[in-house]
Amino acid sequence: MYEVEMKLRAEHERLHERLERRGANRIDAVTQRDTYYDAPTRDFAETDEALRIRRETRDGETRATLTYKGPLVGETSKTREERETDLSDGDVMGSILDSLGFSAVETVEKRRERFSLEGYTVTLDTVTDLGTFVEIETEAIESDLDAARKGVGRTVESLGLDPADEIRTSYLELLIEDGHDRE
Amino acid sequence: MYEVEMKLRAEHERLHERLERRGANRIDAVTQRDTYYDAPTRDFAETDEALRIRRETRDGETRATLTYKGPLVGETSKTREERETDLSDGDVMGSILDSLGFSAVETVEKRRERFSLEGYTVTLDTVTDLGTFVEIETEAIESDLDAARKGVGRTVESLGLDPADEIRTSYLELLIEDGHDRE
Repeated sequence: MYEVEMKLRAEHERLHERLERRGANRIDAVTQRDTYYDAPTRDFAETDEALRIRRETRDGETRATLTYKGPLVGETSKTREERETDLSDGDVMGSILDSLGFSAVETVEKRRERFSLEGYTVTLDTVTDLGTFVEIETEAIESDLDAARKGVGRTVESLGLDPADEIRTSYLELLIEDGHDRE
Repeated sequence: MYEVEMKLRAEHERLHERLERRGANRIDAVTQRDTYYDAPTRDFAETDEALRIRRETRDGETRATLTYKGPLVGETSKTREERETDLSDGDVMGSILDSLGFSAVETVEKRRERFSLEGYTVTLDTVTDLGTFVEIETEAIESDLDAARKGVGRTVESLGLDPADEIRTSYLELLIEDGHDRE
């Protein structure tokens, strides 16, 4: 299965109204605090890798995970290796990484509110120091990728937004472009 | 609190008999598989650090932890910084370390059977490729360290062993000295 997604800047007040009118179901709301690390041996921005500690809080409970994302496998597939393990203590993991010579380069903090709308997941993100965004997402097998992208585009339009405004840059990259203060 | 411990080579059959006769209580039995890693940037044997993934199996359930041990703090205290977090998936952690340039240098595998004997913990270790050992351990505050060491020595003698045979080398170092095959 492939993830097909589109991200845009959007005001949330209008989106909330439209989602309610369309009968979308609210799935959940979480806050995510993602700290990205750089290695002592190489520059992950250059090698297209990422090492992240995520602290996700849901209903007052925080769960920490360590994620490694490898470089893109092939030019066209947009597939990358991703490996993840839960941690009992994200702060300890951070301090172990510090001791091993890794450095925290950026922290992305956001509140996510997720809705389900006719087979699509609509995520309203409020990202600290960046603003408000919406992400529309679905899953598809390889042969249905084109149809899935069109479906995502139609959902974007049905929410009063223009697919041409799609942002392909990650929050992490947007913060770095903005010259965001390093952690 | 400080740990006061003494480790010796010992046959377990005789120790089992003596422990039973002395009324020792069996606490538990676990297997531990410890994989030690070396960093891409430095030689932990030289810097006196350690990075370890432990997989501990108890009653059929395996728990994985990542542990970082820093160098000794001061020459005399024998105290080192130790930081540990549980992992939901030890194999994923191992493969993330691989991707980050760390290499597994040695694996120490042992079966531990622990007994409680008059305030002391008596651990019978069967270490793969090294043999059988016993560790006698107690905890003490700083002012009681001498008395605690004497108590540990007396317990060693009461089990029919000679405190002069104490081994101060870790299982990891013993395996490396033996030219144990690297993982």
